[in-house]
Amino acid sequence: MENKQLSLGKLSLNQITTENWSLAEAVAGCEKADITWISVWRHKIQEKGLKESKKVIDDAGLKVSSLCRGGMFPGNTATQRKNNLEDNFRAVEEAAELGTDVLVLVCGGPVDKHIDDARKWVEEGIEQLVPFAESHGVKLGIEPLHPMYAADRSVIVTLDGANRLSEKFAPHQAGVIVDVFHVWWDPALYRQIELAKGRILGFHVSDWIVPVPDIFKGRGMMGDGFIDIRRIRQSVEKAGYDGPIEVEIINQEIWDQPGDQTLGMIKERFLEHV
Amino acid sequence: MENKQLSLGKLSLNQITTENWSLAEAVAGCEKADITWISVWRHKIQEKGLKESKKVIDDAGLKVSSLCRGGMFPGNTATQRKNNLEDNFRAVEEAAELGTDVLVLVCGGPVDKHIDDARKWVEEGIEQLVPFAESHGVKLGIEPLHPMYAADRSVIVTLDGANRLSEKFAPHQAGVIVDVFHVWWDPALYRQIELAKGRILGFHVSDWIVPVPDIFKGRGMMGDGFIDIRRIRQSVEKAGYDGPIEVEIINQEIWDQPGDQTLGMIKERFLEHV
Repeated sequence: MENKQLSLGKLSLNQITTENWSLAEAVAGCEKADITWISVWRHKIQEKGLKESKKVIDDAGLKVSSLCRGGMFPGNTATQRKNNLEDNFRAVEEAAELGTDVLVLVCGGPVDKHIDDARKWVEEGIEQLVPFAESHGVKLGIEPLHPMYAADRSVIVTLDGANRLSEKFAPHQAGVIVDVFHVWWDPALYRQIELAKGRILGFHVSDWIVPVPDIFKGRGMMGDGFIDIRRIRQSVEKAGYDGPIEVEIINQEIWDQPGDQTLGMIKERFLEHV
Repeated sequence: MENKQLSLGKLSLNQITTENWSLAEAVAGCEKADITWISVWRHKIQEKGLKESKKVIDDAGLKVSSLCRGGMFPGNTATQRKNNLEDNFRAVEEAAELGTDVLVLVCGGPVDKHIDDARKWVEEGIEQLVPFAESHGVKLGIEPLHPMYAADRSVIVTLDGANRLSEKFAPHQAGVIVDVFHVWWDPALYRQIELAKGRILGFHVSDWIVPVPDIFKGRGMMGDGFIDIRRIRQSVEKAGYDGPIEVEIINQEIWDQPGDQTLGMIKERFLEHV
């Protein structure tokens, strides 16, 4: 398949891929490897604080593709849900301060057996977050997670679900994130990508390997697994997405190897398989 | 919620729940526990052969709710797929010999990155299996598996997918199996159960626990997790299913406890949560 248009200029290091690195180390690693984009995780910002984190990123001339993550809206009581929303306000402020216009939402799991309630709380949470985010110039990227995270991380488990949610808002308010690991299995995938046209706010790559080494830390390096990443990438481009492509690999073995080695491998596999 | 109609007379022990037991031990365990149904796995039949296995089951007066499993249709070459089909012919013969009219199909994973091809091969395989199964009085129960098994066990990962496949055939030829572990996360679940009306050939219960202890051996005891089993059961009944309900728990910890203890717990939780 032709792949002329894709360049390393689109590659963004999602910081969780080098989880053992601090933000400063990840930024230095990107500089050294000529990677121009980074996606930042909130727990990594806390290491040195927001202001210092921003300075480190800006000094290196890195662009921030997204902030991970807001969401986790469900809660059994109104107070819990209000606290969850407050945390999302902080996430929006951090995204704006870091200079990215995309806050990735991992929407949250159900409380006990009430998955329908959780879906309702997610919708209410996003509704309440949108005006605040809009006033900060931040778009909400609703990320459907793999159904194996339905109980603990996200009741939004299909691109269909994310599309329906995002369509309640204007495209400059909310859209969807397409992560190949989460959606590759879906028989409706390519149709749903078409339906997401003009609303795709991020594209994440990794691979599905067998055996899955761990439920949470279960992702593989692009090319090592079963996902037709290139086909999905081309489909996402056809639906109008032209932004950075985040490499987001949560895998203990990859975390434990030297970060520079990981970045080298990522660049190679990005050109070969994405 | 009311639960008057459900009795232990519907409980079927899916044999993999007591994986450490031989078939003879499982049959004796069911007799002792007054469980009248069993679902048999093919690797357990091989221990003593089909004839002896049938005798053991019949002597105890147990009814066989299903045979697990046929399927695994995809293969890279026509020869591989033909061999896979041959194995399904044997499975049909075994089901008929054991006196059950349901062969559960775990359809098989993709070869490399070609999930669409695998879905086509599954459809072709079932088409070729149907006349043979029909002539043996055996219905094919297409079981959608959880999407986390898409790469290695089944490219049929939603009830929608299983419904569409089964609708290509007459209801006495093919239907679907609803297993709560595999489908509970699906936002379209209750609609798809309605659409499966008259075609549900089996209903399996367990629970989704967090953290999932293992990708394959990841299931929990009913009541320990996040699945609203009763709601799903009532929905399946409303769609016309009135047959045995298989308890199918693949979990190392449960395997390792004494089988009699497992059966006692299953009966209790069945009344309480199913």
